[in-house]
Amino acid sequence: MLTYTRNTRIEWGDCDPAGIVYYPRYFAFFDACTSALLERALGMTKHHYLKAYDFAGHPLVNARSRFLIPTRFGDDVTIETRATDLRRSSFDVHHRLLKNDALAVEGFETRVWVRGDATKGKMKAAPIPQVVIERLSQG
Amino acid sequence: MLTYTRNTRIEWGDCDPAGIVYYPRYFAFFDACTSALLERALGMTKHHYLKAYDFAGHPLVNARSRFLIPTRFGDDVTIETRATDLRRSSFDVHHRLLKNDALAVEGFETRVWVRGDATKGKMKAAPIPQVVIERLSQG
Amino acid sequence: MLTYTRNTRIEWGDCDPAGIVYYPRYFAFFDACTSALLERALGMTKHHYLKAYDFAGHPLVNARSRFLIPTRFGDDVTIETRATDLRRSSFDVHHRLLKNDALAVEGFETRVWVRGDATKGKMKAAPIPQVVIERLSQG
Amino acid sequence: MLTYTRNTRIEWGDCDPAGIVYYPRYFAFFDACTSALLERALGMTKHHYLKAYDFAGHPLVNARSRFLIPTRFGDDVTIETRATDLRRSSFDVHHRLLKNDALAVEGFETRVWVRGDATKGKMKAAPIPQVVIERLSQG
Repeated sequence: MLTYTRNTRIEWGDCDPAGIVYYPRYFAFFDACTSALLERALGMTKHHYLKAYDFAGHPLVNARSRFLIPTRFGDDVTIETRATDLRRSSFDVHHRLLKNDALAVEGFETRVWVRGDATKGKMKAAPIPQVVIERLSQG
Repeated sequence: MLTYTRNTRIEWGDCDPAGIVYYPRYFAFFDACTSALLERALGMTKHHYLKAYDFAGHPLVNARSRFLIPTRFGDDVTIETRATDLRRSSFDVHHRLLKNDALAVEGFETRVWVRGDATKGKMKAAPIPQVVIERLSQG
Repeated sequence: MLTYTRNTRIEWGDCDPAGIVYYPRYFAFFDACTSALLERALGMTKHHYLKAYDFAGHPLVNARSRFLIPTRFGDDVTIETRATDLRRSSFDVHHRLLKNDALAVEGFETRVWVRGDATKGKMKAAPIPQVVIERLSQG
Repeated sequence: MLTYTRNTRIEWGDCDPAGIVYYPRYFAFFDACTSALLERALGMTKHHYLKAYDFAGHPLVNARSRFLIPTRFGDDVTIETRATDLRRSSFDVHHRLLKNDALAVEGFETRVWVRGDATKGKMKAAPIPQVVIERLSQG
């Protein structure tokens, strides 16, 4: 599977009064990495791929994280993101956040490929285009 | 089990360009509700209960959410939060976010009761005080 | 001028490793209060008032804050929000955040009333409807 | 003056339902750049420089931004950050966010060098060490 890798530094503003990452921020990191994986696969920004593939995004059906090692501001971490299962109109994404090469946080997302307008309550699952499946599947 | 209920309005700033809640925000809502549940149970703010019970917080081991119905800015929602399992030094929390009385988002957290200093990498699980278990268990 | 008042508790997730509010969060509070002021004035949610008045929002031209007294998680604060100057297609908003009746943070926003589609780079200032000006001006 | 430059892509999660950056996020970007400027100047992460210089951070006295050109998700922007005035125990920081070489957002911060413990309400302004002033002043 195509893997997207991001090196990033944990910021002061990502952390809570315990000095470690405020956990919703991990989900924000993972959401950005899923978009970046698709940007990498399709060779265009999310702004453009939403238009090019005439779809409304890839909202979540469920999200899950395991927190193994705390990270704090100033830590340099690596996030590795790849699709793990590509179905007709939904897909799974796996994120591994590493600190000093050790798995610190793991994230799992199930997302749906949708058309329509979320703000009008009219989102509808649509088939993932074949080219998207092919590009995400490449090693 | 003691249940904490919060009525809140989804804000513009909670939403993404699809006009629906940016999903990490749900985890932020749930984190705030877990603290509020403990504040309710112990009759003091989090700032005070951390001191009163000499502990460093209740960081997560894992978090999970299911997204059933999208919510958008202007929606009035209700969040119901309660502990579902209280163990020696860890506990589970269940959150139900309702929109027009329908379950829109469901959250599950497993948290550890810790002592020490997270910023020094010295957090250590500690037994949950009996009074905390008793108060969270009251209906 | 019409004043909108909100009582809120500072959350753990609003705070940084110094234990005080991470300052961008104050701007998020103020943005929510400006929307709430308009919701109060117009008797409908932002979702509805954007449609009813056929406009694209009230983006900022500039924002400014003064930080006088730190606030920390568990603090109960009051935010008072009102328009201070209403011009043809722009307006100023003043926010006062009080802690124990003392002014802790003060915010100033200048906003434009726009039509069009921000995502297409086609936002255009439009006259603020007279009814909006009248309602915001009422004491 | 020493200038820190960051190239970054605006993320989906930074944007609001108008598809443009939710303005408190600009202040989060600027806060991170101020820390990065000090990290660059002092050759260590914020986590380490707080300890090395025995201080409690550089909270804000005031912050201001001008919003000239909207930015949206997928935009690649550059942020240039430098100190503009270094006084005994406070300093000013100027941020310029550029999109396609045009000034899109400008930020101004006044910060205080403090000692003590913010959570105990005991922060106190302290003189900025001479080495910090020298390093921030280097071109």
